[in-house]
Amino acid sequence: MRAWEIVSNDGIDALSLAGRPEPEPGLGQIAVRMRASSINYRDLLTVEAPAARNFPFPRVPNSCGAGEVIAAGPGCSRFATGDRVASCFFQRWNDGGITPGAMASALGGALDGVLAEEVVLEEDGAVAAPAHMDWRQAATLPCAALTAWNALVEKGRVKAGETVLLLGTGGVSIFALQFAVMHGARAIVVSSSDAKRRRAEELGAWRTLNYRDTPEWHGAILGMTAGEGVDHVIEVGGAGTLERSLAAARVGGHVALIGVLTGGAANPTAIMRKSLTVHGIYVGSRTMFEAMNRAMEAARLEPVIDRTYAFADARTAFHDMRAAGHFGKLVIDIG
Amino acid sequence: MRAWEIVSNDGIDALSLAGRPEPEPGLGQIAVRMRASSINYRDLLTVEAPAARNFPFPRVPNSCGAGEVIAAGPGCSRFATGDRVASCFFQRWNDGGITPGAMASALGGALDGVLAEEVVLEEDGAVAAPAHMDWRQAATLPCAALTAWNALVEKGRVKAGETVLLLGTGGVSIFALQFAVMHGARAIVVSSSDAKRRRAEELGAWRTLNYRDTPEWHGAILGMTAGEGVDHVIEVGGAGTLERSLAAARVGGHVALIGVLTGGAANPTAIMRKSLTVHGIYVGSRTMFEAMNRAMEAARLEPVIDRTYAFADARTAFHDMRAAGHFGKLVIDIG
Amino acid sequence: MRAWEIVSNDGIDALSLAGRPEPEPGLGQIAVRMRASSINYRDLLTVEAPAARNFPFPRVPNSCGAGEVIAAGPGCSRFATGDRVASCFFQRWNDGGITPGAMASALGGALDGVLAEEVVLEEDGAVAAPAHMDWRQAATLPCAALTAWNALVEKGRVKAGETVLLLGTGGVSIFALQFAVMHGARAIVVSSSDAKRRRAEELGAWRTLNYRDTPEWHGAILGMTAGEGVDHVIEVGGAGTLERSLAAARVGGHVALIGVLTGGAANPTAIMRKSLTVHGIYVGSRTMFEAMNRAMEAARLEPVIDRTYAFADARTAFHDMRAAGHFGKLVIDIG
Amino acid sequence: MRAWEIVSNDGIDALSLAGRPEPEPGLGQIAVRMRASSINYRDLLTVEAPAARNFPFPRVPNSCGAGEVIAAGPGCSRFATGDRVASCFFQRWNDGGITPGAMASALGGALDGVLAEEVVLEEDGAVAAPAHMDWRQAATLPCAALTAWNALVEKGRVKAGETVLLLGTGGVSIFALQFAVMHGARAIVVSSSDAKRRRAEELGAWRTLNYRDTPEWHGAILGMTAGEGVDHVIEVGGAGTLERSLAAARVGGHVALIGVLTGGAANPTAIMRKSLTVHGIYVGSRTMFEAMNRAMEAARLEPVIDRTYAFADARTAFHDMRAAGHFGKLVIDIG
Repeated sequence: MRAWEIVSNDGIDALSLAGRPEPEPGLGQIAVRMRASSINYRDLLTVEAPAARNFPFPRVPNSCGAGEVIAAGPGCSRFATGDRVASCFFQRWNDGGITPGAMASALGGALDGVLAEEVVLEEDGAVAAPAHMDWRQAATLPCAALTAWNALVEKGRVKAGETVLLLGTGGVSIFALQFAVMHGARAIVVSSSDAKRRRAEELGAWRTLNYRDTPEWHGAILGMTAGEGVDHVIEVGGAGTLERSLAAARVGGHVALIGVLTGGAANPTAIMRKSLTVHGIYVGSRTMFEAMNRAMEAARLEPVIDRTYAFADARTAFHDMRAAGHFGKLVIDIG
Repeated sequence: MRAWEIVSNDGIDALSLAGRPEPEPGLGQIAVRMRASSINYRDLLTVEAPAARNFPFPRVPNSCGAGEVIAAGPGCSRFATGDRVASCFFQRWNDGGITPGAMASALGGALDGVLAEEVVLEEDGAVAAPAHMDWRQAATLPCAALTAWNALVEKGRVKAGETVLLLGTGGVSIFALQFAVMHGARAIVVSSSDAKRRRAEELGAWRTLNYRDTPEWHGAILGMTAGEGVDHVIEVGGAGTLERSLAAARVGGHVALIGVLTGGAANPTAIMRKSLTVHGIYVGSRTMFEAMNRAMEAARLEPVIDRTYAFADARTAFHDMRAAGHFGKLVIDIG
Repeated sequence: MRAWEIVSNDGIDALSLAGRPEPEPGLGQIAVRMRASSINYRDLLTVEAPAARNFPFPRVPNSCGAGEVIAAGPGCSRFATGDRVASCFFQRWNDGGITPGAMASALGGALDGVLAEEVVLEEDGAVAAPAHMDWRQAATLPCAALTAWNALVEKGRVKAGETVLLLGTGGVSIFALQFAVMHGARAIVVSSSDAKRRRAEELGAWRTLNYRDTPEWHGAILGMTAGEGVDHVIEVGGAGTLERSLAAARVGGHVALIGVLTGGAANPTAIMRKSLTVHGIYVGSRTMFEAMNRAMEAARLEPVIDRTYAFADARTAFHDMRAAGHFGKLVIDIG
Repeated sequence: MRAWEIVSNDGIDALSLAGRPEPEPGLGQIAVRMRASSINYRDLLTVEAPAARNFPFPRVPNSCGAGEVIAAGPGCSRFATGDRVASCFFQRWNDGGITPGAMASALGGALDGVLAEEVVLEEDGAVAAPAHMDWRQAATLPCAALTAWNALVEKGRVKAGETVLLLGTGGVSIFALQFAVMHGARAIVVSSSDAKRRRAEELGAWRTLNYRDTPEWHGAILGMTAGEGVDHVIEVGGAGTLERSLAAARVGGHVALIGVLTGGAANPTAIMRKSLTVHGIYVGSRTMFEAMNRAMEAARLEPVIDRTYAFADARTAFHDMRAAGHFGKLVIDIG
């Protein structure tokens, strides 16, 4: 079987498509014929700067995939051959709060990822794919969707009538938009593109604004909310946007810090002055994933996919992630 | 101005329409020209058995009303003449948990209620009526809607994909149905009428069942939920239905106990055996009311009104409440 | 190796001491040389009425034990030979909320228990014994202590200055007393024995009362709390005491329902009328167990042991549990 | 009656002791003969840089005081003449979450403070002083103690066995130390003085360290906690210490941001990478204050007072606050 491998520190173009023996599932493990894998910004950084993650070469990238169980190792009870599954970002985080052990079990980082024709997962490190989704759609869920769900629903406990601020239109933000709408909340989307604003509005955004036209967008958001500020911020922008995000939050509001912060520093005074609650979010547990899938099935939610790629064109997908400009997810068909 | 009064223990037909002087708002109080009042089962019990509540005659019934501010006493800052307001069931429960002091401030019980042309309320005991609602609609909110909101959203923290069991089609259950739908949850409605089941389905119920056809309805509900049981029960039936409700809940599930339990006793073993959380619910705070109004405005939710009555026909409204059989709320126009 | 076995429905005197082959740990399992086991009321009921639990004979009773790891199966990483461990009541409840799968993994019920010289446990179904405790002390923790911890600390979130009502002086109540004192709360103990009241006071009880002298003890408790009622009730008495317990709770208070309720029914009206929160408690997760152990180590807490028995005298221990009258735990040395 | 007044931007030495008419309590207000007032770092900043707070001169400083009710205005029901009370930092924050309205009601800022012989407070803006405390002790509570209580107990939900990191030995940190001990938690105190470390140990600190000897103190704290980090950080140091504090927290840990952050910026990456929860803390509600007082009464907790001053020497007290070096609170007797 074939797998894409990170074999050096030389970036996207050095990704190598290699033949590997078919993996055998051990105790409590399943072998999965992967059908599709989606890319996250974190996967791009891993490909571009593997040294920062301190893993041995070769390493298969990507945490997010969906496929079919082709073998179940001894002791398995949750899945059987033929089941449709999606991977869990963390192979060892079933329930409860995150632990160092969970953090050491990330696919496409500490462990080999899923950009391969066949993959072995912990049985507890997979969930049933939502019945109404195809392979591509199910492959978008493990990181981006679950991060948005954890931030807004599990930690944020969003409820109807609340306002949610979303930065940009990447994978996490678009899922957060869909989850906000699903719970009767009002989503405000900040983007640099009027075309993307229109698409966000089609998905149910309550208000959108273009930060190129409105560089002081935090003030505009206070205006939209009768001067009070938003109940929730899904902050994916890093230190560069954090101070504005804090300024746009209401007294007592909630800020979810997500994603690969781009270094830099921010003045945290507003956290204290406005009695904010800030949650650092790092994907989520399998129990959360299953709860999210129930919600998506109830709503027949369709993940937003921007573009798809053939397995052989995986490098192009990473280049497009670097170029940014997408709306929703980039997905590689594995076949 | 005229007010309906409970003047004896002789029940509905002894309700008396009396002339009263126009009330003057004191410090921090507002005078409201009431336009509509809705009836709750609790109001019926108060009219039928006032002795149980230990208040002096005459006593104006009803907790739920909407109208226009006609005067604001000294020290008022939240409302001014002309504002459209709804009454708070508890005149002294702004925020946080319920207190004995809050419980001693219920309209139409410890204090005179709102079935009157003019009423004085604490300024902190009123909220702005949702802008998209007429007087009748706004008058349905203070008790039934807020009870459902507190049970399902505040205490229950319902989220998308969860299942909610609703008993019957009275005011609280129908609002709970609307709130469940609003949050992406799946509502199951148990009713004795196929016509009402159809109406519940039109409002978005996921499943309904007729307990006359299915007396062992708790088993049917387990069947609908893959044997797991529901995440939330909004239990308005009292001891008579409680054991079945507990049987229909999932392990670790949530049961909201609401309304005037009809005496009797229930075996609580399932609470322990299934690690259930049971919340006694007694309407809600003003802060919850305001949060609910934001949600209803965002969704442009329309309260379900079964029938309306002229002010002079208030007794008929109470008789109809006693006859049961309604779907949603009974509302008296005050004019 | 020898194990006590339930081999019939004939009760305590039919318990049989049998020879069994030494068990081998499978994948992810450990073999433990048990040194002590404590008895809970639930274990007594299991011995007396095994039919209610629907397991095959023979079945080793008891969920609570402590001993030394003598072998670790393949894949084990948490424990090694020589480690001192205590058993987890549920072999499969690591973290998060309880699940049906966890409930199907109880020792001394669904699975063979620990009243045996050698026992195999899931590696994830054991915790390190607190360093300052001997075998007997560590053997008291898995069910009684963890139930009290879950009820008062995890679900109840007890804090300093709150009041806690405890019924009787069995294992759960005495641990709850110690945890209440540990958190700066005021414990009220209701007992039928003045000698036990004195011992409870020595352990730090704030107030005690004898329910033989004060049959209307709920009124006395209101009196102790300025008429307000207690913040927490640890209700181990079943339907027989529940109505009084509810009457003794404050508005908005918390009631933990624990133990094997003795049938019967109770009027739940007070739950609603006082906006109580009732949690059904069924022991706790391994994560809770580890948190409890950290607390007991910080406080060097000493479990209260009433009496100890030789392994050969296990039947006597069950008879003493039936006779009641103990203060704290009954423990069998295994040797 | 006499009051200290801020009359210019010229700092401590420009504080002026002025005669003022005796204030009359309005509706729902009480007049209090103040007996003692404690100083917080925030009060010092207010005196030194009043322009930042945008209030008119003259303004009476200080939020924290205790005294005797000498008159109750119309409508008062909570207090009567002769009652011993402490001021609430926020005059309008009874319960629930903080609001902009509460924030606009701070004593010694938006409103005149309590460094005066007679003061009018909202009846809802005062609490009963704990019975076992003298005036000086009760005067330490409103800001420093309640901030520590809110951070560690209300928001942090500290429980026995957890570890708590405290920075320095100012008022908030010492109260937090006492509350940690009260709840069975292990407190680690970082100080620059070995003498203060010893005093912290006398108060029950589990570990202390001198950051002059150990500039990389976050590493030392990881060492004390088996590499895991602390459960709670009470961060009073501002941006200057925040990055180290975040580094010392465990995965999933809790950080309370408190006090007047000294400008600057911090890299927030660790919040996300370790899934931390950060709560901005701004004193607390009256309901929290009452809960804290119950806890302090149960434990007969004695606030730690470093030095006391005569009313006439108030300026000296502010100079000593600026000089830092104290351990616990500075209190001015009002007489």
